Amino acid sequence: MTESDLPVAQLTPGRWGDPSHSVKLPAAALDALKHLGVRRPPHEPTAPADRPGITSEQVAVLTDVVGAKHVTTDLDSRWAHTRGYSTPDLLRHRAGDTSDMPDAVVYPASHDEVLALLTACARHHLAVVPYSGGTSVVGGLAPDRRFITLDLRRLDQLLDLDEVSRTATLQAGVRGPAAEALLAARGYTLGHFPQSYEGASIGGYAAARSSGQSSAGYGRFDQMVVGLTLATPRGTIELGRAPMSAAGPDLRQLVLGSEGAFGIITSVVVRIRPRPTERHFEGWRFENFETGLTAIRRLAQDGPLPTVLRLSDEAETAVNLADPDVLGGGSGGVLAIIGFDGPYNQATADVLTKAGGQNLGEGPGELWRVGRYRAPYLRDPLLDEGALVETLETAAFWSRIPALKAAVTEALVGALSAQGTPPLVLCHVSHVYETGASLYFTVISAQTDDPIGQWRQAKMAASEAIASAGGTISHHHGVGTDHRSAYADEIGPLAVEALQAVKHTLDPDGVMNPGILLTSR
Amino acid sequence: MTESDLPVAQLTPGRWGDPSHSVKLPAAALDALKHLGVRRPPHEPTAPADRPGITSEQVAVLTDVVGAKHVTTDLDSRWAHTRGYSTPDLLRHRAGDTSDMPDAVVYPASHDEVLALLTACARHHLAVVPYSGGTSVVGGLAPDRRFITLDLRRLDQLLDLDEVSRTATLQAGVRGPAAEALLAARGYTLGHFPQSYEGASIGGYAAARSSGQSSAGYGRFDQMVVGLTLATPRGTIELGRAPMSAAGPDLRQLVLGSEGAFGIITSVVVRIRPRPTERHFEGWRFENFETGLTAIRRLAQDGPLPTVLRLSDEAETAVNLADPDVLGGGSGGVLAIIGFDGPYNQATADVLTKAGGQNLGEGPGELWRVGRYRAPYLRDPLLDEGALVETLETAAFWSRIPALKAAVTEALVGALSAQGTPPLVLCHVSHVYETGASLYFTVISAQTDDPIGQWRQAKMAASEAIASAGGTISHHHGVGTDHRSAYADEIGPLAVEALQAVKHTLDPDGVMNPGILLTSR
Repeated sequence: MTESDLPVAQLTPGRWGDPSHSVKLPAAALDALKHLGVRRPPHEPTAPADRPGITSEQVAVLTDVVGAKHVTTDLDSRWAHTRGYSTPDLLRHRAGDTSDMPDAVVYPASHDEVLALLTACARHHLAVVPYSGGTSVVGGLAPDRRFITLDLRRLDQLLDLDEVSRTATLQAGVRGPAAEALLAARGYTLGHFPQSYEGASIGGYAAARSSGQSSAGYGRFDQMVVGLTLATPRGTIELGRAPMSAAGPDLRQLVLGSEGAFGIITSVVVRIRPRPTERHFEGWRFENFETGLTAIRRLAQDGPLPTVLRLSDEAETAVNLADPDVLGGGSGGVLAIIGFDGPYNQATADVLTKAGGQNLGEGPGELWRVGRYRAPYLRDPLLDEGALVETLETAAFWSRIPALKAAVTEALVGALSAQGTPPLVLCHVSHVYETGASLYFTVISAQTDDPIGQWRQAKMAASEAIASAGGTISHHHGVGTDHRSAYADEIGPLAVEALQAVKHTLDPDGVMNPGILLTSR
Repeated sequence: MTESDLPVAQLTPGRWGDPSHSVKLPAAALDALKHLGVRRPPHEPTAPADRPGITSEQVAVLTDVVGAKHVTTDLDSRWAHTRGYSTPDLLRHRAGDTSDMPDAVVYPASHDEVLALLTACARHHLAVVPYSGGTSVVGGLAPDRRFITLDLRRLDQLLDLDEVSRTATLQAGVRGPAAEALLAARGYTLGHFPQSYEGASIGGYAAARSSGQSSAGYGRFDQMVVGLTLATPRGTIELGRAPMSAAGPDLRQLVLGSEGAFGIITSVVVRIRPRPTERHFEGWRFENFETGLTAIRRLAQDGPLPTVLRLSDEAETAVNLADPDVLGGGSGGVLAIIGFDGPYNQATADVLTKAGGQNLGEGPGELWRVGRYRAPYLRDPLLDEGALVETLETAAFWSRIPALKAAVTEALVGALSAQGTPPLVLCHVSHVYETGASLYFTVISAQTDDPIGQWRQAKMAASEAIASAGGTISHHHGVGTDHRSAYADEIGPLAVEALQAVKHTLDPDGVMNPGILLTSR
């Protein structure tokens, strides 16, 4: 089974992924949670109560463009489009909190309909949130005022496939597995497999600069995009006449990562590659994280890189390596996973051996491959049990990575211990570049009585540590509302003003994703 | 002799490169020119006449920042900073045309001095042209009003070298050979060798998105930059906390290619690599351009790529392959050059063989290597003889390359033949990507009585052909003033407005390179 065989997940609001894939925590895990002081919370989830929505005049503005059939205002539909999948999102969902619920959901079917909707919404001062996979974990679907949601699922076509140039034009609403299936039918792959793969969509990949598990071989999504079409309240922008150009700034890179604040990306032209005919995954053991880090840096800088390259730290290895029934423990050392789309490359293995790695064979590699989309499913039962579990990530240049990792870990341990809930902090590197790498943290502790406030404090401490240690506030999750302030600090007030000027040009009425990426003016 | 041994060229105004490297045309070349109807022009170059410059009050504004020693207003200094090196630039220079001459040349020594100068110039409404290597071939040094030039040659330091991250922080005024020498002393290379290498500088590489002859192995300059510092009239922007980030749009890519219109890039953090211990260059013959194109596309898409990869068409091959004394002729077929920094890779050669290539050995490779910076020197004696010679370039996706090449060639032949000067049009591919490639054209014809107007017509026809055939108006020369209109058409009016908004934010008084990249408001 490969990625193109995976079904598009039937996402349910408030719990990750396809309900048929939901998992139960093993008994040993429940035991381990007790050691963290985790206790099952007393309250059951609360159902959302409806609230007054959009006026019938406003609905008419929308139905004029897409027809009555493609505008929904019922509670179920609106609730299903409320927020994304951060832990605070899930907790608010469990509390039945409708504060971020859209007033209506609109389903345009084409670029022209999106364009007409944005024009109409600007004229009527209706704030708009584009909704592609809905998998934001940074508050990217929660604007600072009442809004309607544009769900792009009907923009689900492969518009063009150029076999000579090896490019495909995909509409924004094509979900991960659907994109792979469309390309697989022609013998190609996109090679983009983020952990949100089952739910996320092409438009979201582009708007939020997604990076997938095969990034060492295929690059990030923003490196795959060679062209794009953006619908804004003031018209269309089409970019990308050539792979690269010296004709001014690369405006594709201004739209990528703009998170709906400038407009809606309705399609992208992406680089594609022939589907691999074989794949190999294997595990490697290093004495400690430092040794493993040097080894994967060697590959990132001198090659040859595999397609997948990741390195867990001691704590994450202890959890990963464990028998499914034993959380914690393990054999010591740290685990790296390498994967190849195509033939196994012995030269890659030789570099790891020379750097002190011990080949553990295909067993751990296959375990990782099979479970690679499973981690987000674990969060819901963990929350059910009263654990606080969340992830955060950053990236930096290689020389800063060790201190950055230590600073973030210390910040998380400090902030959560101070609240009486000392955490387990796990970390891995899953994206490497010649000059640096990402760090991905998983945090588990007991919940306090106010888990949202509890996490806010931990996250704030971690964000400050990231800034002080010279990391970026996000390597692949994006800015949304959660990182807006840290993002502004990262690029500085003048760069923020420049972005605001771009937004004001393309969206003078400020209806596009207000408060996301940038503070509303 | 490698690139780091090449001296920084002592550029002289109006003629390319170091005068000690100037070349004489061989007799056979002169013969060949006669077949194009080339006749030596009757007039000798005219010396420039001085014209009223800057007021003493304005000079005081500048000397207040950098000291009197670092502001020059004499004719020689100003004339030496007049325009770049396009053929129209050289022709205007020969005519003694001072219309684009700066009123003063200022030599700041640091980022802070640049910043202070920009603030002062904005306050006093003095237009500013940043001058790094001065090698623009697209009118990038000719704003639409009187101006002063900021020559960055004193920003010539390697500020930092991070061996773990493999990054170097270089100031904008470091010239190509100087950058290589600074890095070579530490065992590293940047690997950026554009044809302007002897004269061009780090700041210009960044501001105009340069691409070098080793781009298949090292990438373009905009791919090497991981951080940068921009001085604007409103303050400093510092970008690049990590190699890649999902924290909003990639603003580095908004500054790269901005050609001084937003501010002045004072330093960049670039990826560096260990110096290669061996290098190999060799020639390959293909039956025709089409076969060769398929072969190099194979390498670009499936690898393994060499460091240098270029393919001449039949016409360029006929000139290239010729004995130095025989322009024209040759053995038929087309010539490709491949080069490796590091060991020779047989797998690359195997791909070329399988695609119908015939290995010509190191001879043609070494000929190319030795002569790689020589072509621009040929232009001056050709102009002396009365030939019109100029280059232009574009890029597109692979599937469009053949039609684009045909359309541009036809446009150039048509426009120049209509003026009674049928040209020789040569073409090569020198930059490849998975999804597309560049095309570089060299045009030679007899001059008419108005060679600037003659070329304007040819260039306009070529630019229209590029747009119609789906190419970008520049792959690595930039926009400047020459491509401003075509560039606006390429990105569309809304994108132009967005860029104008960025410019207005960072440069509200419109003093930065006015009329370059964007029309002045």
